[in-house]
Amino acid sequence: MTQNRIYTAALIIIGDEILSGRTQDKNIGQIALWLNIQGIRLKEVRVVADDQDAIVEAVNILRARHDYLFTTGGIGPTHDDITVDAIAAALGVEVVIHPEASAVLHQYYESRGGINPGRLRMARVPDGADLIPNKMSGAPGIRAGNIFIMAGVPHITAGMLDALTGTLEGGAPLLSRQIGCWVAESEVADLLGKIEKAHEGCQIGSYPFFREGKVGANFVVRSVDDRILDQCISALQAGLAEIGYPTVGGGI
Amino acid sequence: MTQNRIYTAALIIIGDEILSGRTQDKNIGQIALWLNIQGIRLKEVRVVADDQDAIVEAVNILRARHDYLFTTGGIGPTHDDITVDAIAAALGVEVVIHPEASAVLHQYYESRGGINPGRLRMARVPDGADLIPNKMSGAPGIRAGNIFIMAGVPHITAGMLDALTGTLEGGAPLLSRQIGCWVAESEVADLLGKIEKAHEGCQIGSYPFFREGKVGANFVVRSVDDRILDQCISALQAGLAEIGYPTVGGGI
Repeated sequence: MTQNRIYTAALIIIGDEILSGRTQDKNIGQIALWLNIQGIRLKEVRVVADDQDAIVEAVNILRARHDYLFTTGGIGPTHDDITVDAIAAALGVEVVIHPEASAVLHQYYESRGGINPGRLRMARVPDGADLIPNKMSGAPGIRAGNIFIMAGVPHITAGMLDALTGTLEGGAPLLSRQIGCWVAESEVADLLGKIEKAHEGCQIGSYPFFREGKVGANFVVRSVDDRILDQCISALQAGLAEIGYPTVGGGI
Repeated sequence: MTQNRIYTAALIIIGDEILSGRTQDKNIGQIALWLNIQGIRLKEVRVVADDQDAIVEAVNILRARHDYLFTTGGIGPTHDDITVDAIAAALGVEVVIHPEASAVLHQYYESRGGINPGRLRMARVPDGADLIPNKMSGAPGIRAGNIFIMAGVPHITAGMLDALTGTLEGGAPLLSRQIGCWVAESEVADLLGKIEKAHEGCQIGSYPFFREGKVGANFVVRSVDDRILDQCISALQAGLAEIGYPTVGGGI
């Protein structure tokens, strides 16, 4: 197998509301799935408070370590929305009003009570940044170098991801196939480890469940190589069948 | 106001299944809410891959920085469950079989097909660690110093949190009150900032929504001091009423 370059990304979720338990995060999942389609792997996520030092620290470590860094949250109009200031500080640049963002916001709020200082805050970007279109509401997302600054509200984030689809360079997407089996994963732990080792570049994940009064597990095999993925799945099915556990393709 | 010591915690979510988008995390929310009742604030969360280096790095930074460090995931019987090994490596101690965990597992599996090497893996702990009871299934959680190693499956984690309730030293719990209002948050951004500044130790969070064809926002005020919290809420209600926005106690 030719080893292609692997493109990686990190995500910073910015918001006291996640850390306090008030709000259930939905952005990790949707960004992870979207990235995979772009051929980019989400390698780490950090959830940080609405605190400039915490944001700056995470931004500077993760933007250097990965091809892409995404952030969600903290780009609204209120005093607790400090993401733009923190990222500008991390990059060592000024915060400026982006003329196009300002125009978008003036137009958006024309029929909604007019622009005001809070609303104009959402036109502020780190100097040199570009906009990410927001088709759901007025305030755009922001691209500053390899950093993608997105909304916290999941459906607005989704619209921004749509706008970015196909624009980021990625590698071979990580493929996955799942099979399921009525077995306690602890019965077959050894088998899983051996089959993973025998198939280079495959990872086997084991996800146990308890349903209908019985224990079972789904096994997900991931690889960038479709052929080896198939071989690994076949070996796993054969190995499980051999010890008396027939599998269900696609999972249970 | 007397400033009491603030107790903080971090959480590491260990698992490729979260980073791939396969599984929606539910542990951040339940651990955040539980910690708050213990008088401990969740200050940061990291989601890392099933990768020893990534786990060791996060463990060593976060255990030094906070009073408590929680981890979820990677303590099952299979080859991808490497949390115990990684944390032992981070602590520079050996992995040993904990006799009590071994006894629990032998008993648990007696009527479930018997113990085997995969199942006995779940009795492995960093040397010197204690157990956290697991009333939901056989394998216990682990306490190693200020690190609490919990299951990834949310209802098992919940049982382990129950077992820890009241055992960790905390400070004054962070209190919160919410009010709601049919207003675009961008209309009142200025007001929120001013009122927060005027009430020391209070944080005001603003959470906009769009329902019944109208925009609104809930405002959450957080403080450890009940008296200042009440004053801040009253000032916010008065300020919003003054510009024509009556509020609903408890939020909309």
